[in-house]
Amino acid sequence: MKATKMFRAAEKPVLEDEDAGATPLCSGDAKADKKVGKALHKEIATLQEMLYAERNRKVLVVLQGVDCSGKDGTVHRLFSKINPMGLRPVRFDVPTSADLARDFLWRVHLQVPRTGEIAVFNRSHYEDVLHPVVYGTLDAGAMAHRYAQIRDFERMLAESGTVLLKVFLHISKDEQRRRLQDRIDDPEKHWKFDPSDLKHREQWDAFHAAYETAIMETDAPHAPWYIVPADSKPHRDIAVATLLAETLRGMHLAFPPGDPKLAKLKVK
Amino acid sequence: MKATKMFRAAEKPVLEDEDAGATPLCSGDAKADKKVGKALHKEIATLQEMLYAERNRKVLVVLQGVDCSGKDGTVHRLFSKINPMGLRPVRFDVPTSADLARDFLWRVHLQVPRTGEIAVFNRSHYEDVLHPVVYGTLDAGAMAHRYAQIRDFERMLAESGTVLLKVFLHISKDEQRRRLQDRIDDPEKHWKFDPSDLKHREQWDAFHAAYETAIMETDAPHAPWYIVPADSKPHRDIAVATLLAETLRGMHLAFPPGDPKLAKLKVK
Repeated sequence: MKATKMFRAAEKPVLEDEDAGATPLCSGDAKADKKVGKALHKEIATLQEMLYAERNRKVLVVLQGVDCSGKDGTVHRLFSKINPMGLRPVRFDVPTSADLARDFLWRVHLQVPRTGEIAVFNRSHYEDVLHPVVYGTLDAGAMAHRYAQIRDFERMLAESGTVLLKVFLHISKDEQRRRLQDRIDDPEKHWKFDPSDLKHREQWDAFHAAYETAIMETDAPHAPWYIVPADSKPHRDIAVATLLAETLRGMHLAFPPGDPKLAKLKVK
Repeated sequence: MKATKMFRAAEKPVLEDEDAGATPLCSGDAKADKKVGKALHKEIATLQEMLYAERNRKVLVVLQGVDCSGKDGTVHRLFSKINPMGLRPVRFDVPTSADLARDFLWRVHLQVPRTGEIAVFNRSHYEDVLHPVVYGTLDAGAMAHRYAQIRDFERMLAESGTVLLKVFLHISKDEQRRRLQDRIDDPEKHWKFDPSDLKHREQWDAFHAAYETAIMETDAPHAPWYIVPADSKPHRDIAVATLLAETLRGMHLAFPPGDPKLAKLKVK
């Protein structure tokens, strides 16, 4: 079964029912899996070069997930083989005052991929339909506006030649505890530890509920959501690489035909 | 001898006298060299992580060179191990009308590295002191202003915690011919071929002279120029990685000390 089918979010996703520890794309043989990963990264690199050569469409990968779900690690692995000029990672941190002085899509629009590019958003406009819900800072009417605004924005991107791929990295509450504890137990990793992660962890169920609503409200054929089991890092990496490879294959990319005028040109 | 000494541009560099085919950092054993390269990439990745953890300084690598000198390939190799969020490649293409409506440093300033980041400029503000000289579109007075403006700009960056590293990838005229001919002979590479490369090639000596002047005018202890022999791609890659590694080592980076308050924290 294709990963784009296997991980596609249900119409009304229930994260509690999704096994974060599943590893359907791993064979159980770590060496063999590594080989599969390498082949995928090579294929993605070739397809991205064709995307660049075509100079017409663009790809946007949105990575979301709770704290410690592995968004950074996923981006790092995707870069293994690809030309860095063709894959642009963008991290959306806490909005600046300049961001807050505009609508929430402003800073996101500034970073959409250009022709030939694959942009990977490490967090995104989806943060703006999570925190306001969990902490009750916006009411239902305002949230309804935001979901609709996201739908409109993503449809506009798709209509303008952007292929979208939205991934929720799904880890269990236990796995998050292990990863947070790791950062605390190793003094060299203290700089990575953010106390607000503990505050968010207290709202685990509320964040999951907000994600379920966001996914349900914004899933579309041209902007599909995938829920990837991510307790296992090797599985997460293979799953995201497979989703990206399948998406690129679906674009039927090819190098432009040669220019007959160049055939006999000799450089002096 | 350190690479930062070996490749440091002379006060009055004469590119004609520099052997583009030299490979002083290669051992002659391709396998051993590959191992050295891998170790360098790993070290750069660790040092960049420290730079990020420190959240204080930033690094700017400027890559310049004639067409086909390997700027893209160099960036690609530098990415082998590093966290992509920590190394940001920026390509400066032909200025847009929005760029041209401002001073030539405007679009460059927008892209300078942020705290913890290594930015790699694939072309840069130095294009603006090459073409106007070669094609005579600006007079000597205007050029004197530009050199001074670059000096001021780079000093300001250095004073604000940016460590600069400027690299001229030096290839021979013969090597450029081979690389251009390769793109012409392989129809699958025609999309990479830019007819203006042939036009620039006709001005080979004029471009070299403009580079010599630019390097001479803007070399400084806080913004040093290096001339890297780049006919050999393996040598070019090792040389640039070595220059970057030495530069990062010179910054005496370290992970911040652990936070004693976290010592006994248990995540629930």
